[in-house]
Amino acid sequence: MTTINLSLSSIYDLTYQSMLTNGCDEANAAALADIVFRAERDGSHSHGLFRVPGYIKALRSGKVDGKAKPVVTKKSPVIINVDGMGCFAPLAQETGLPEVATAALTTGIAALSLTNIHHFAALWPETEYLADRGLASIACTAYMPTVAPAGSHKKLFGTNPISFAWPRPGNPPVCFDMATSSMALGDLQIAARDGNEVPLGTGLDKNGNATTNPAEIVVGVLLPFGGYKGSAIALMVELLAAGLTGEQFSFEAKNNDNGDGGPPRGGEIIFAFSPEIIAGPGWEDHVEGFMEKLTNLDGVRIPGERRHKNRLNTEPRPINRKLIETIRTLS
Amino acid sequence: MTTINLSLSSIYDLTYQSMLTNGCDEANAAALADIVFRAERDGSHSHGLFRVPGYIKALRSGKVDGKAKPVVTKKSPVIINVDGMGCFAPLAQETGLPEVATAALTTGIAALSLTNIHHFAALWPETEYLADRGLASIACTAYMPTVAPAGSHKKLFGTNPISFAWPRPGNPPVCFDMATSSMALGDLQIAARDGNEVPLGTGLDKNGNATTNPAEIVVGVLLPFGGYKGSAIALMVELLAAGLTGEQFSFEAKNNDNGDGGPPRGGEIIFAFSPEIIAGPGWEDHVEGFMEKLTNLDGVRIPGERRHKNRLNTEPRPINRKLIETIRTLS
Repeated sequence: MTTINLSLSSIYDLTYQSMLTNGCDEANAAALADIVFRAERDGSHSHGLFRVPGYIKALRSGKVDGKAKPVVTKKSPVIINVDGMGCFAPLAQETGLPEVATAALTTGIAALSLTNIHHFAALWPETEYLADRGLASIACTAYMPTVAPAGSHKKLFGTNPISFAWPRPGNPPVCFDMATSSMALGDLQIAARDGNEVPLGTGLDKNGNATTNPAEIVVGVLLPFGGYKGSAIALMVELLAAGLTGEQFSFEAKNNDNGDGGPPRGGEIIFAFSPEIIAGPGWEDHVEGFMEKLTNLDGVRIPGERRHKNRLNTEPRPINRKLIETIRTLS
Repeated sequence: MTTINLSLSSIYDLTYQSMLTNGCDEANAAALADIVFRAERDGSHSHGLFRVPGYIKALRSGKVDGKAKPVVTKKSPVIINVDGMGCFAPLAQETGLPEVATAALTTGIAALSLTNIHHFAALWPETEYLADRGLASIACTAYMPTVAPAGSHKKLFGTNPISFAWPRPGNPPVCFDMATSSMALGDLQIAARDGNEVPLGTGLDKNGNATTNPAEIVVGVLLPFGGYKGSAIALMVELLAAGLTGEQFSFEAKNNDNGDGGPPRGGEIIFAFSPEIIAGPGWEDHVEGFMEKLTNLDGVRIPGERRHKNRLNTEPRPINRKLIETIRTLS
């Protein structure tokens, strides 16, 4: 794999231009370029430029409206809905996150429901935004059927990621963002391409048999992480991201998608909590006492730590040459 | 193991009397007896009469105040705190749940933080209470160090259970309630007593080595379910149950506990969400479309299903004879 070094601003510009030339207005293009740039900066490659051809396909097929103007509705002082009007998720998030942050900082808890959006990115930008404002948060989204519920060998759940962040003023937040499948779909596809085995329990072949061959899982099903307990978490994500937002469940997203390879229409739910109001003053020191115990354990990695370390590096990033060419051709 | 059949009302009465004679007032005794009766009714034996000797020890040592009167404080219209004043959790829940339900039904989202309580029971009674009122919910509590964070072989997390319920008007709710450890502590102790092996990955011996011998794990550490992803969920529970309530982390609970064998002082957080307000009218049918897909899959068990089936059985329950004798001796 040959790579080309791209500066962080070039990564932003390449994405921004490719969105503009494919029908986005400036607001949509800027929100999307910002998310892609931040993913590459933090080393979340599978959510960076790797996604741009898919974004372009969704614009070209007309599934996504690159000029959509999200509409905010307050269903109550603590329930904010952003109807993305068919946009990519980042602009809807940019619109709704300040509102939900203000509500949670005022009352202690609030929810942001995003509907009529197309989510194809990481979730940590949402939860870290809130952590940077002193709020804990949980974010969930569904996708298209990829994962068989525990006990079954038929796909129903999406990879259904969940992100959680906890604010640590003066430090990067604790922040995890993970698929509730045993493995991310992209990682499975890469293992299949490279002919590497995956651990037993990752997925099943098309006949429902356990296999360590990723190519067989690609045409079969992924399993949830952690057996029936992980499956319960995946089910919770599906119910919160679709049932609670009123947007499409993974199976509905698949049924109604045009198959262009871009992200389907779906929903996202974000809950924000204020430790300052719920626990009260002094919560930071209390939590730091626990974090000290945790960070002093040998072998433990604080969720988000690797990304936060990558973030400090302002050097150019090596990007797959073929991917850059593909994006330039489509721009 | 010889058993005696006890009617459900006898299970309630035995618990109620044992609480009264050990210093509880009627309100505390009734709240606790109700929780124990419901656990036995639903087949959650490890949270039923099995816990009563521990409850009694905590009353006799003076750690728990059986006459405590919980105090409600509204920190905002959507943040309810119940200070248990040192009671067992059930009375504090009974006090706070109607308040958080009303707040969530009015505004769409609300939180109940329980502090200065002693939690030794299941969490599904809390989340099912809210589901019965049309609310989705999440409940979390910590405990005392039992589980090593992924990568470590030292205990820091409690078994840190999390419960989630989703309302299905006309049907029992979807409801899971699970430890974030690979196995519940009680089940591990039973496996050790009976000399049964446990799966690799359940825990480590005292030197930090993987073992299938439960007796070695009892003196070593349990691991989180599902590797580093389950460990992230366990960390989230610790931060929500202690960081967000301002109550003790598991390690603090252990440090400040008198070791009487009863439950330590800790916190619980409960979030309630209204699908009627957030998703809007029609959410029930939308979700039932998904539930139909899920229940039609071979091999899939809906979380809570087994308990809800047991609940329909009004016959007497076989209870360990020795346990009954122990409780009667202490009453």
